[in-house]
Amino acid sequence: MADVRPEPSSVDSDSPGVTTGPISGSRKVHREVGDLRVPARRIELSNGEHLDVYDTSGPYTDDAATIDVHAGLPRTRDGWHREHPTQLAAAKAGVITREMEFVAAREDLPAEFVRDEIARGRAVLPASHRHPESEPMIIGKKFLVKVNANIGNSAVTSSVPEEVEKMVWATRWGADTIMDLSTGKRIHETRERILRNSPVPVGTVPIYQALEKVNGDPAKLTWEIYRDTVVEQCEQGVDYMTVHAGVLLRYVPLTAQRVTGIVSRGGSIMAAWCLAHHRESFLYEHFSELCEILREYDVTFSLGDGLRPGSIADANDRAQFAELETLGELTGIARAHDVQVMIEGPGHVPMHKIAENVRLEEELCDEAPFYTLGPLTTDIAPAYDHITSGIGAAMIAQAGTAMLCYVTPKEHLGLPDRDDVKTGVITYKIAAHAGDLAKGHPRAQEWDDALSRARFEFRWTDQFNLALDPDTAKAYHDQTLPAEPAKTAHFCSMCGPKFCSMKITQDVRDYAEKHGLTSVEAIEEGMREKSEEFTGSGGEVYLPIVS
Amino acid sequence: MADVRPEPSSVDSDSPGVTTGPISGSRKVHREVGDLRVPARRIELSNGEHLDVYDTSGPYTDDAATIDVHAGLPRTRDGWHREHPTQLAAAKAGVITREMEFVAAREDLPAEFVRDEIARGRAVLPASHRHPESEPMIIGKKFLVKVNANIGNSAVTSSVPEEVEKMVWATRWGADTIMDLSTGKRIHETRERILRNSPVPVGTVPIYQALEKVNGDPAKLTWEIYRDTVVEQCEQGVDYMTVHAGVLLRYVPLTAQRVTGIVSRGGSIMAAWCLAHHRESFLYEHFSELCEILREYDVTFSLGDGLRPGSIADANDRAQFAELETLGELTGIARAHDVQVMIEGPGHVPMHKIAENVRLEEELCDEAPFYTLGPLTTDIAPAYDHITSGIGAAMIAQAGTAMLCYVTPKEHLGLPDRDDVKTGVITYKIAAHAGDLAKGHPRAQEWDDALSRARFEFRWTDQFNLALDPDTAKAYHDQTLPAEPAKTAHFCSMCGPKFCSMKITQDVRDYAEKHGLTSVEAIEEGMREKSEEFTGSGGEVYLPIVS
Repeated sequence: MADVRPEPSSVDSDSPGVTTGPISGSRKVHREVGDLRVPARRIELSNGEHLDVYDTSGPYTDDAATIDVHAGLPRTRDGWHREHPTQLAAAKAGVITREMEFVAAREDLPAEFVRDEIARGRAVLPASHRHPESEPMIIGKKFLVKVNANIGNSAVTSSVPEEVEKMVWATRWGADTIMDLSTGKRIHETRERILRNSPVPVGTVPIYQALEKVNGDPAKLTWEIYRDTVVEQCEQGVDYMTVHAGVLLRYVPLTAQRVTGIVSRGGSIMAAWCLAHHRESFLYEHFSELCEILREYDVTFSLGDGLRPGSIADANDRAQFAELETLGELTGIARAHDVQVMIEGPGHVPMHKIAENVRLEEELCDEAPFYTLGPLTTDIAPAYDHITSGIGAAMIAQAGTAMLCYVTPKEHLGLPDRDDVKTGVITYKIAAHAGDLAKGHPRAQEWDDALSRARFEFRWTDQFNLALDPDTAKAYHDQTLPAEPAKTAHFCSMCGPKFCSMKITQDVRDYAEKHGLTSVEAIEEGMREKSEEFTGSGGEVYLPIVS
Repeated sequence: MADVRPEPSSVDSDSPGVTTGPISGSRKVHREVGDLRVPARRIELSNGEHLDVYDTSGPYTDDAATIDVHAGLPRTRDGWHREHPTQLAAAKAGVITREMEFVAAREDLPAEFVRDEIARGRAVLPASHRHPESEPMIIGKKFLVKVNANIGNSAVTSSVPEEVEKMVWATRWGADTIMDLSTGKRIHETRERILRNSPVPVGTVPIYQALEKVNGDPAKLTWEIYRDTVVEQCEQGVDYMTVHAGVLLRYVPLTAQRVTGIVSRGGSIMAAWCLAHHRESFLYEHFSELCEILREYDVTFSLGDGLRPGSIADANDRAQFAELETLGELTGIARAHDVQVMIEGPGHVPMHKIAENVRLEEELCDEAPFYTLGPLTTDIAPAYDHITSGIGAAMIAQAGTAMLCYVTPKEHLGLPDRDDVKTGVITYKIAAHAGDLAKGHPRAQEWDDALSRARFEFRWTDQFNLALDPDTAKAYHDQTLPAEPAKTAHFCSMCGPKFCSMKITQDVRDYAEKHGLTSVEAIEEGMREKSEEFTGSGGEVYLPIVS
């Protein structure tokens, strides 16, 4: 790993530890759509052009905003009128909500299309009534692939301000949602601080807090304790919740022969509860009541894959797919309650078994948005699992996954720090964007083309500014050629001045221009004529078309 | 990027700057096959088991070896008798060479199979007669996917000892071949030092040195200068050479409308030459003479993709595939001369266009081993192009690519340093291994299973030692839980003691054991009985099978 740690571009002294200020080379802009202000990040280029890219970072990167983490972000969505309890209910009734309009502008797609995908259940718009600080976004296979960043402390490490900064930091680099997976002390307070300051939807796994309430003994969990925890979190404004309601008692023994058993924390807790009580999961039995609670706040279900594989050996096994079938059943129940649903997916899956996961999920869960953790495509590289999983994430995005849960270099080894969060987010933005390109998202390639043109034209600063991580790109360049003139040089350190293919290409083009060979048609015409001459002369190889 | 830079485990004071000593937690072993000594890296586990993995690192990781970079490595293959000029000639005649036997033992496959794949042209065994220091290895789609690491200085940076250490360092972490792409001063000396000390095949691009001989002006190149350079490099012991003989004059204008033109240095040099002289490429015209030279030393062709795409926009275009067709023609000519051939591939390719590259290469080049650079699956992440390309590399490996040329984080920005080389190699070992898993290579999953079992059983030290990079895995773990007892703890910092899914799983298993539910059959029997009871009782959901 190279030793480059760009500093935050500025730190607001009233908000200790929270990074503010624009990303290098860009600034926040807002598109006015009616009375909506839809954010984008504008990268100004040296040739007078600019590129606006999707922006998840909220007011933190807006030079015009004042940040006060104690007061929280402005409650922008307060007072957005609602006739319908949930986005799904509205969409089913043919209504386009303000959130849908916002999302449509953000993704550059018709609002009707947004509404129809939500009504169909193929997309979700997680926007709790109690989290008015968040900017509406959408998760669905027909939209840009999204990225989630997990943060949260554990019993052994981290603090509240650290977690708030991780949230700000993750959204700065492109996290579309964040999950607060705290399991230590001060769970409620940590979540409160994150919610009040988060410009993106926040997800949680309520069973973690419920388990803390019973001192960590799964057998002591009850439906009532769990339900109260869910209500507490709904009241706070959590936008989506992972619920492991598909871990049925009869599935638990299917994991007996696995190499790594049950690796989902929620899954193992529910399995332990089921066995201890010889009863079916209270999450499954009370699922309709859960739906009624979530409906009231428009909290979205993220149906957890408690039996996901934790190793290559366990991928796509009976336990995993049995649970998926149950998640499909629960999807139908939730939708009947007008509650939005997405489905969580693996985990550890070798490449040749990835597509099958998406196919089955779509079939069994009626195309509810798929939300996968990686998957990791091999188990042999702890410390590099952002990469083992970034490969799987890109592939599963191409196959139709709507949101990718990032994996950091610390996966399996420790809790991610701020640097790990950034590495995880950037890796997953790469996977998501590669997925957008492969799915042919209409505007995805604009970004690649803008960067490649800058590269070809030796606009170094534009190339850095168009990078997902401008600071590191510039720092790497400066390690070999630090002087300012190198930023305008028509070569670089890889090849030196004589070996620059792009410079030679420009010479070739100038030559072709001079000889009128500027279009493929002109060239082909020239080739045809020469070819006829040539065939007449009995030659075999020499085919000069530039003459 | 995290700030972890493991030091070399030891440095021999007589060999300044060259890393020696075994990788943490493993040691060099040799399997005796007849009078051959085939190396492996043995990872000893705390449960008394061990795992032997493929080892590319040569004597440098052997505690029993004495390293002297001035004297070079032992010339192990000196005197290996040859009746046939090349491995291909031998294979065609039905002969199994000592190199083939070595490779067969190394890959755990029958020697006849190795011979037949070489005879068919679907695999190459690059082992120059003049590089007896190298350990035989094979490149082909039916074998383990291989990784190449590019090293070499440029006019603006680096020194000979640095490049030798990069070679040692790259092979330590798993590079199967290295390419010396030096373009600066002391090209001959740099290559000599690398060859005499390299335990893996060494590739070059002779046109770089030829261009230095004419002071960097492509127009001044001649066949004679090029030929003499090739002979010079063959005499030194280069094992394979990139030759851009497929960049034909008539293809150059096909690049005119590209976003990034010609990005291969060799490709752009040859294009410039062709235009300047209004002549067909001297590499193409003299290709048979080249074959005769390479045949004499058993140097393998790596037919260069001089017109590979340098951006997502240019992927799979007419220029690229026109050249590929010519490479197919040249493949036939080389094989007729008994010269081994592999084919270089892109470059920058979005995911949905990757498989087409392999399909066409196999069709047009008669299944000659494909050797690809990445490909990068998006252009927007300079400083992370090991990842943008690691995704593409894994996918193209799955599709049948035999060797992957690594890309480091410095791609497009600067020359890789030692850390970048390691990051690049590890990333590509991940891609290669993910490919082996996806292709169902018979022994690939052993490694994943060994690591996953160690993980499930909380054998932390085994987990580190089984990692591709044990030092970084251990360092990451120690950042959060540094104390020695943590190495035996049945939990870790991610979840803390109460939230460990693997511990809960073990409890679940103990319970199942106690109740005789230890096999899927017993479970199913129990489920069936309970299900019958249950159906009789009119219930719908509750299905207790553990009772």
